[in-house]
Amino acid sequence: MVVHKFSRVFAGGLHKLLSHQSHSLRCFSSSGICFNMAYSVVERGSPYSPDYRVYIQNQNGPISPLHDVPLVVDSTKKIFNMIVEVPRWTNAKMEITMKEILNPIKQDVKKGKPRFVANCFPHHGYIWNYGALPQTWENPEHLDDGTGCKGDNDPIDVIEIGYRVAKRGEVLQVKILGTIALIDEGETDWKLIAIDVKDPLADQVNDVSDVEKHFPGLLKASVEWFKIYKIPDGKPENQFAFNGEAKPASFALKVVDEVHRFWKALVNKEVDAKGISCVNTTIEGNPFKISVSEAKDVINKTPVYSQPQKVEPIVDKWHYVHLK
Amino acid sequence: MVVHKFSRVFAGGLHKLLSHQSHSLRCFSSSGICFNMAYSVVERGSPYSPDYRVYIQNQNGPISPLHDVPLVVDSTKKIFNMIVEVPRWTNAKMEITMKEILNPIKQDVKKGKPRFVANCFPHHGYIWNYGALPQTWENPEHLDDGTGCKGDNDPIDVIEIGYRVAKRGEVLQVKILGTIALIDEGETDWKLIAIDVKDPLADQVNDVSDVEKHFPGLLKASVEWFKIYKIPDGKPENQFAFNGEAKPASFALKVVDEVHRFWKALVNKEVDAKGISCVNTTIEGNPFKISVSEAKDVINKTPVYSQPQKVEPIVDKWHYVHLK
Repeated sequence: MVVHKFSRVFAGGLHKLLSHQSHSLRCFSSSGICFNMAYSVVERGSPYSPDYRVYIQNQNGPISPLHDVPLVVDSTKKIFNMIVEVPRWTNAKMEITMKEILNPIKQDVKKGKPRFVANCFPHHGYIWNYGALPQTWENPEHLDDGTGCKGDNDPIDVIEIGYRVAKRGEVLQVKILGTIALIDEGETDWKLIAIDVKDPLADQVNDVSDVEKHFPGLLKASVEWFKIYKIPDGKPENQFAFNGEAKPASFALKVVDEVHRFWKALVNKEVDAKGISCVNTTIEGNPFKISVSEAKDVINKTPVYSQPQKVEPIVDKWHYVHLK
Repeated sequence: MVVHKFSRVFAGGLHKLLSHQSHSLRCFSSSGICFNMAYSVVERGSPYSPDYRVYIQNQNGPISPLHDVPLVVDSTKKIFNMIVEVPRWTNAKMEITMKEILNPIKQDVKKGKPRFVANCFPHHGYIWNYGALPQTWENPEHLDDGTGCKGDNDPIDVIEIGYRVAKRGEVLQVKILGTIALIDEGETDWKLIAIDVKDPLADQVNDVSDVEKHFPGLLKASVEWFKIYKIPDGKPENQFAFNGEAKPASFALKVVDEVHRFWKALVNKEVDAKGISCVNTTIEGNPFKISVSEAKDVINKTPVYSQPQKVEPIVDKWHYVHLK
């Protein structure tokens, strides 16, 4: 059971937060799988400013969402952990940092300013909970057979389509349903399609055909969203491999397996990390492992949490971009 | 110039608020019209609870948004005041109360619970700033020539399509561009189309044809939104007069003139108000006028502002309703 005590955790500094961490243990009755993990978040700096960071911790202290959260929850049932970076209907482009120690979530910066994704009519912000699978890496040296493009040097992205708006930094257990293959400025950028196992529809949705049945129009809208979302920023329309068709769950699972193996090679120093921080606090025997105490020191050296920066009204502008 | 000191005003009680009221005077350079009004809001009770109220005040004290805010700002330029009830992309169905003294904004209640409008995919909440024109009344005894239906006993509704997300209770100056004629459960329910005169596009948008040019797809989406928005609540699809076509600004202005005359008859006791509160603090010689001091007493007797109630996650559910 993942419990985020956001109301308290999001308000204070680390010292306060560590005393509020969650130790809940509970089983999901719907899936019969017992999750005995407990993650919470630590906000540092001022939201919507360049110094803002969201660190993730387990019951012992700080961890890296990229390296310390296990990828697999139940391989038979296709259930994986997912780190939420951008809650549905928000615009701030928050992402796991690759190069910073402990890989906190921060807002992407563009021309020196925190980046907000444009609203393209009729969409508002991201139209799903958006995030990444831990312990995965899209190797930029690897040429994908299917797409003919190389990886984008990030963990693999996930769109979570359940009804609930998740929280930034939340760790969800999701079922993988399929994938679409965005080609973003020439790089393969898989977008896995997933659903929170706690969603009331989760048991009825197992593959992309079920998505179209229960969420009619969402797959089409998702492809459109990725095609146009950078156009207001002056970028060209994005392309999709496989003609924009969603690949089934079986295909998606093979991709997940591949990017997990790339991640393993990365943290085991079998490939050059080229600046990616592989620091972790839980992988036994790993060359990049540090102590919880050292990890706490890392966070304590960052600016304490302060009030969010005012977001300019222009971020709310609706752009009328239509595909031909 | 309307200044809302929301950051401060929305946090405290009335005694605090009255000392923070705005007295700004400024001219809009784009229109050349000088607005020397200053409105602010007073929040009382707990948001998303039945006791929540938003009162409006001018520089002297409390007013009724329905009766004391002048309808017309500039009749030649088709500019009117508009009271914002629901900011874009929000779901809480907030509305001017007809029967309560000073006509504060409160959340509509359904089966004893504050009402949230369902999200119908691909829309999120209300897709415009939604509100009403002051000093108007859709007389339920009047049979409309065009629609063949009677009025809905409320001030006339407005959808404001500018880029900025307005604040609840804000008084905007808007240009009327046209209207669509919703038939909501058998009653004529005009939805005026308007744009904030401060929007960068305001000078280029004068009629419904300009809306389609600068906001392609928005009129169609608006009609669809009203047709389907009650379906998740078990209501039938709503209908539109004139085949859903938007009527031009000239037509809309005649409707505004008519509902303004109905309002005049109401506050001048020429028709039976049937429970509608006509209390005001500024209409000289009006039988319903009370003093500012009495109006302050009215607000002081309501519960002080307190933290918002937790909104259930189900409010965020996306409903996949498609028209045949």
